[in-house]
This record gives sequence, C-alpha cells and structure tokens, in this order.
Amino acid sequence: MAELNGNLLVAQSGGPTCVINASVAGVITEAGRHGEIEEIYGGLNGIYGILNEELIDINEERSKAIDGLRYTPAAALGTCRYKINFDKKPEAAARDMNRLFEVFQAHNIRYFFYAGGNDSQDTAHKIHLEAVKRGYEMRVMGVPKTIDNDLPHTDHCPGYGSVIKYNSATVMEIGLDVGSMATDDGSCCIVEVMGRAAGWIAAGTVLAKQGHASNPPHIILLPEIPLDEAAFLAKVQATVAELQYCIVVVGEGLKNAAGEEIGADKSRLDAFGHPVLSGAADALASIVQGRLNLKTRTVKLGYAQRAAAHFASQTDADEAFACGAAAVRAAIDGKSGFMPKIVRLGSAPYKWTIELEDLANIANVEHFIPRDWISEDGMMPNDKFVEYAAPLIAGEVKVPMVNGLPAYVSLGRTPVEKKLAPRG
Amino acid sequence: MAELNGNLLVAQSGGPTCVINASVAGVITEAGRHGEIEEIYGGLNGIYGILNEELIDINEERSKAIDGLRYTPAAALGTCRYKINFDKKPEAAARDMNRLFEVFQAHNIRYFFYAGGNDSQDTAHKIHLEAVKRGYEMRVMGVPKTIDNDLPHTDHCPGYGSVIKYNSATVMEIGLDVGSMATDDGSCCIVEVMGRAAGWIAAGTVLAKQGHASNPPHIILLPEIPLDEAAFLAKVQATVAELQYCIVVVGEGLKNAAGEEIGADKSRLDAFGHPVLSGAADALASIVQGRLNLKTRTVKLGYAQRAAAHFASQTDADEAFACGAAAVRAAIDGKSGFMPKIVRLGSAPYKWTIELEDLANIANVEHFIPRDWISEDGMMPNDKFVEYAAPLIAGEVKVPMVNGLPAYVSLGRTPVEKKLAPRG
Repeated sequence: MAELNGNLLVAQSGGPTCVINASVAGVITEAGRHGEIEEIYGGLNGIYGILNEELIDINEERSKAIDGLRYTPAAALGTCRYKINFDKKPEAAARDMNRLFEVFQAHNIRYFFYAGGNDSQDTAHKIHLEAVKRGYEMRVMGVPKTIDNDLPHTDHCPGYGSVIKYNSATVMEIGLDVGSMATDDGSCCIVEVMGRAAGWIAAGTVLAKQGHASNPPHIILLPEIPLDEAAFLAKVQATVAELQYCIVVVGEGLKNAAGEEIGADKSRLDAFGHPVLSGAADALASIVQGRLNLKTRTVKLGYAQRAAAHFASQTDADEAFACGAAAVRAAIDGKSGFMPKIVRLGSAPYKWTIELEDLANIANVEHFIPRDWISEDGMMPNDKFVEYAAPLIAGEVKVPMVNGLPAYVSLGRTPVEKKLAPRG
Repeated sequence: MAELNGNLLVAQSGGPTCVINASVAGVITEAGRHGEIEEIYGGLNGIYGILNEELIDINEERSKAIDGLRYTPAAALGTCRYKINFDKKPEAAARDMNRLFEVFQAHNIRYFFYAGGNDSQDTAHKIHLEAVKRGYEMRVMGVPKTIDNDLPHTDHCPGYGSVIKYNSATVMEIGLDVGSMATDDGSCCIVEVMGRAAGWIAAGTVLAKQGHASNPPHIILLPEIPLDEAAFLAKVQATVAELQYCIVVVGEGLKNAAGEEIGADKSRLDAFGHPVLSGAADALASIVQGRLNLKTRTVKLGYAQRAAAHFASQTDADEAFACGAAAVRAAIDGKSGFMPKIVRLGSAPYKWTIELEDLANIANVEHFIPRDWISEDGMMPNDKFVEYAAPLIAGEVKVPMVNGLPAYVSLGRTPVEKKLAPRG
C-alpha cells in the first residue's frame, strides 16, 4: 500500500460515555507515531461542526490534557446527533456530503476517524463510500462507542463496561441501604437505568449480586421482554415475604404487552395541563404501590450513569484507547471503511484482541441479548450473561482529585483557520 | 466520678448514610480500650429491635468486619424509624419505655449509644431522662448522623460531607455530558437530590462549580425558598442563551408559593387511576418543557446518594468515627444525656474538634441554611456557603475492591441469648 501523507481529523458523535475520550486519546497518541500524518485536527460537535468547518488543532493542546482524556467523561470535542439522511432528505444529504468533502479537501484531511454508535458508524460508512466514489484518497475508520452495547460483531462496546460497573456498585449500595431499613411492612426500590431498545445496561446490574441469589437486584426488567404485570408483582411479593425488601432494576424502554413504553404515557397531565414526564421506574412504582400497598421509592440515574468517570472500568478505558489506536494503525496500513472490534479470546482469564469489521456490516444493525442468557421468567440474566459481563468491569480508572472532586480536563480548542466561505 | 462497670449497647436509627457505620466503629473501637465496659452489644434495627431483645454480640465479630464498617454504607446493625411518642400515644410510649429498661437491666446495659438524626436524639434524650428518673445507672449518648445536616449546634453532621461530595461529582459529570451535547436548540437537565425541609444537600452541589460562574450547576432550588416560577424560567432561558445548556439542582422538598411540595401533586393520576409518583425534578421538567419548549431530562439520585460509599469523603468518615469514639470517652468520664458535636476551629486550613452538647438542646430542633449564605435571587449559595462546605468533602475513603466492585462488609450477627419473655 502506498504511503498516504496528509492531515488527520477525529470527531465524536452520539451520546457521550465515560471512555469516548479515551478512544480519541488512542487515536491522537497513535497518530503521533506515524510520520505520514502531518497535522492532527479535532472536529467539534461531530459532523455538525465539521460542516461548519469548526476544527481545532490538537497539536496545540497540552500533552497533560491529552493524557487527561483517558479519565475524563463526556465528549471533549463536543458531539451531535446529526445524521446525513439520504433516505428521507436526499437533497440535503447530498449538499451535506459535498460540503464535507470541501472541508476535507480544504484541510487536506486524508485520515478521518469517527467515534460513535450505530448511526455514527453509518455516517462513517457513507463517507468512506463517497470518498471512493469521488476518487478522493482518504482513509475512513469508525471507532466503536456506546453504553448501549448494541453494535453487532464486536464482543462488546467501549463505554458499556463502565456504565455497568457504576450501575452495579450503585445497585449494591442502594440494596444495602434499603435492606438495612427493612421493617415488617417491607419496602421496594426501583432503579431506572438507560436502554431504550436493548437491555444490556439493565442486565449488567446482575453483577451486583456477586453470585448470591438473595443479593440485590432481585428483579431486572429488560426492554426486550414485555412486562408481565402479574408475574412481576408476584415476584416482588415473594421477595418481600422472604427478605422484607425488594430491589428492582428497569431499563427505561420497558414495554407493556401492547408494545408501548410504560414510562411514556402521554395521557398523564399535571395541574397545568402539561404531560407528566416520569419514566419507567415511576410508572412501575405506581403499579407496585397501588396493587401491593408496598412502600416504593424510585431512583433514576439518567445521564449520571454514562458520565460517572469517578468509577469507570479500567478494562473499558484500556479497550477504548486500544480501539482508537488500532483504527489509526489500520488506516496507516491502507484500510478504509472499517471499525475495530473487540474479539474475546477467553473469559477466565479474560483475554481479548482487536480485529477489523467492515462498516457495511455494522451500520444500523442492533445487537440484542441472546434469549438463552436470561432466566425463563425473563426477569434475571443467568450465568451465561454473568460470564460475559463480569470481566468488563475489572479495575478502576484512577482520576486525579483536586479539592475533593475529580480533576477532569478540558481542551484548549485552538481553532484551525477557516478556508471556506460559511456554509450556505 | 465513680467507675461504672457493665455492658455497652450501640444501635442505629433513621435513614442510613455512608458513614453511620464509621460512627459505630468508633464506638466499638474506643469501648475496647476501657476495662469498665464488659460486653459490647449491638441492637438490631434500633429501638424497634431492642424492644424485641434483638441484640448481637460484637465481640464475636471478625475484627476485619469492624474495620470494614469504616467504609461500608447503610446501617450494618439495621435501622428503624420507630419513635417513642409520649405526646400522641402516651400509654404505648410508657409500655415501650418499661420494656426498654427491662432489656437494659436483663443485659446489664450501662452504656447506651444511639446514632441518628433529630428523632433519634430525642429518643436518646428521653431514655437518659428515664434512667435518671428510675435511678438506673446508665450513661446515654447520642451520636450525630444525618445527610440532611439539620441538627443544631454541631457545625455539620456526619454523613453530610459524603453526600455532597458524591452529588457534586455527579453534577460535575452530568454537566460535562450535557454540555458536550450542546446544540443550537439548547438543553436542560434537572437533578433531584434529597432534602425535604432543609436545602443543605442541594446547596452542597455548588462545590461542583469549583469557583467558576459558568460551570454547572447553574441553578440550585432549595426547599426553604418557594419557587418563583417566572424568575426560574428566566434564569434557565438566560443560561441556555449563554451556554446552550443549563443544569438545575433541586431539593426534593421544593415548594410552590402556596407552600405545597411541587413534586407531591396527588391530583395526577395514571391510566390505572393511581396517583403519579414523580417528584420535584419531573414536575419542574414539565414546567420547563411546557413553557420554554426546551429539551429537558431529569435525574433522581434518591437512595443512591446517601449510600455512595464508593465515593465517600475521608473527612466525613474520620469525623463520624471520632464522634463515636468521643461519645464513649465522655460516657467513661461519667457524662450522660449528651451528643458529641463538631466544632470548627478554622476553614482554611480546616480544623475541628469535638465538644459535647446537651441532648435537651438538640432534640427536635431543625437547623437551616442562613439566608445570607444564599444569593439574593435565592437560586445559588454564595461564597460564605462555599467556605463552609468545601472542607467537608476533602479526601476519598479507600474501599477495597473485589471483581471490580466494592467489597463492603456485613456483620456475622451472633445473637445474644434472650433473657425475657417475648414482648406482649
């Protein structure tokens, strides 16, 4: 493969995670080792910012800041949910694609890395195909990222290990708290976690049990399995009868038998006539409290869970970094249109390596938990799931502390001089 | 003061914290140094269990478990919200008090330590008075505990530093996440924290700002200050105009101008006719989304915040331990009817000592944030508050990890043989 000289552009897309910055650090660190790569640029706010030619010069950043990306949550370059949608808006998509290549050419971008989930891999794939079509020599790589763990082909996704580590610790701690307040009447606590379509995040909290059936969580409700209200209430009741308390974890996208999200009932209006925004946990709490007359409290971790870098998984951060670095090595080797994927070589001891997957096989395919990794009643992942998930939470990322709080970094963001007229 | 020989009983009461077990460890550790104290017993589930003569033998516990109490959240002895209520139920209260002293006498309890908040200090005080009245020689000490930080006379309460450390880190992390997703439309995230009457917990998240006005949280709503909806919405709008996002922290007990909790509107019914359980954050989100048409998400930390020992304050844990130990030393010195309180000697550098306060001055008095520690608009604590709160979050409790999760301890709970007939 001929050597390709030029500049590198890396950007982030979709919902942030604890370790998406670690992937960017992997890209930047590896890029610095290869003479073919001249300038290293960051694109602000993903495609959305790149369309506006909002690039920053990574070589102007303090090396301390680049190191800090390995423990700093959220998207240091900014992120977006912008999609180049050829299906629904073909003309706008064609205009966007033209503009992107104007930006690439104006800044001699020959290496493009896009860290994100399903939609972002689709975008990377389209850009790769467009470069080929135009005969514009550029190597395009997706970098996997998503707490949802729903990308296909990769064993798991960077971001997932950290969210289930934090959520499991949290469920363990909530369980100790609620269990220690147990009274004759019993009590229930419902913890809502992210996961609209796939239940990977909710399922991951099974690790809090540490192999003991009576440990919390006692029930895990996944969006893939419609709520069987009677069976659920019976299990809550049986748990409280035995332990005087019950901890339930629910994925936010839990659906009823009719396929509707139970937390998205728009018929509920407040005193002002606004729809009540609650969620799956509150909806379940209404059911438990109403049907069982059992004291029930809710916790909704929301954005906290995907940003909790103060308790991120070292394994996850290492893998995220490695995916970024592997993407650069592959591009230097002449590859384009691929995504590094994590391949598991063994679970005990845990061993992994990185291979490449064609972006054509990644984009817009969702990966769900195998049904035989979940108990027959659908309310608890089984040992197969535990074997899969347990290695992903090993180790703790060390975050420097200042004044009792994490000392996360932010980038200086020196702008790259614009060369184009503003976008029309 | 004459030497008093006999057994010690320690129990926990009210909502758990990250460090209430550290206080028990302080009691146990100090008690082991004094020959007057013969057996060390734990009372299960506070007064509620003691009435049922449910005592455990602490000397049977592994010393590793006692050490582990210094980093294990929740109430290792179990807790209760049981109140001996002479005002409302004088006959039941008199029966309870009789029974308690039967238990104390049967087990030769001469030292009694009760760790808890306002109600628990009231209980300790009543037991002290009853012992004096009966001429039963026993030294009774309260040990301060509450995340709410609303006990009077003590500079702050063990449990408070840890909850605001975790909440501040969480708000900082959520802020990074939401800020990195900023789009032209802007977005808002509302984080609900505990605090029904006093806003100490919500106010503590000001530490996440680290002194920078534009850092999150941008608005903090306290239960003491009725919501001024127009002023609140104007501040959200101004913040989004400047930063493209806005992070709001709200204490769960926030009230409207009529004095009603905004999260406790029972008029909202779900499709089953059950009252909607939501909370202050969801109620505020309905208002923001409805009035400003601004994308708004909520986080409700609930029990997670008071149990988050994986990120507890070392200062808080040390002070909690010291309060337990000081209570024992005071009792050995002949004191009864007191609570150790934390006295601040300086904020920079932070210095503190422990003195005693008469339980008569503690029981049922609530301590609120001084009004001049809050900005004029009522939506942000000022520098006086920051000076007060900042030292309380210093240092991180080191928790041993096993399989990527905290290795919290539980007590073996060897029962003390019962000597009485079951409670009538």
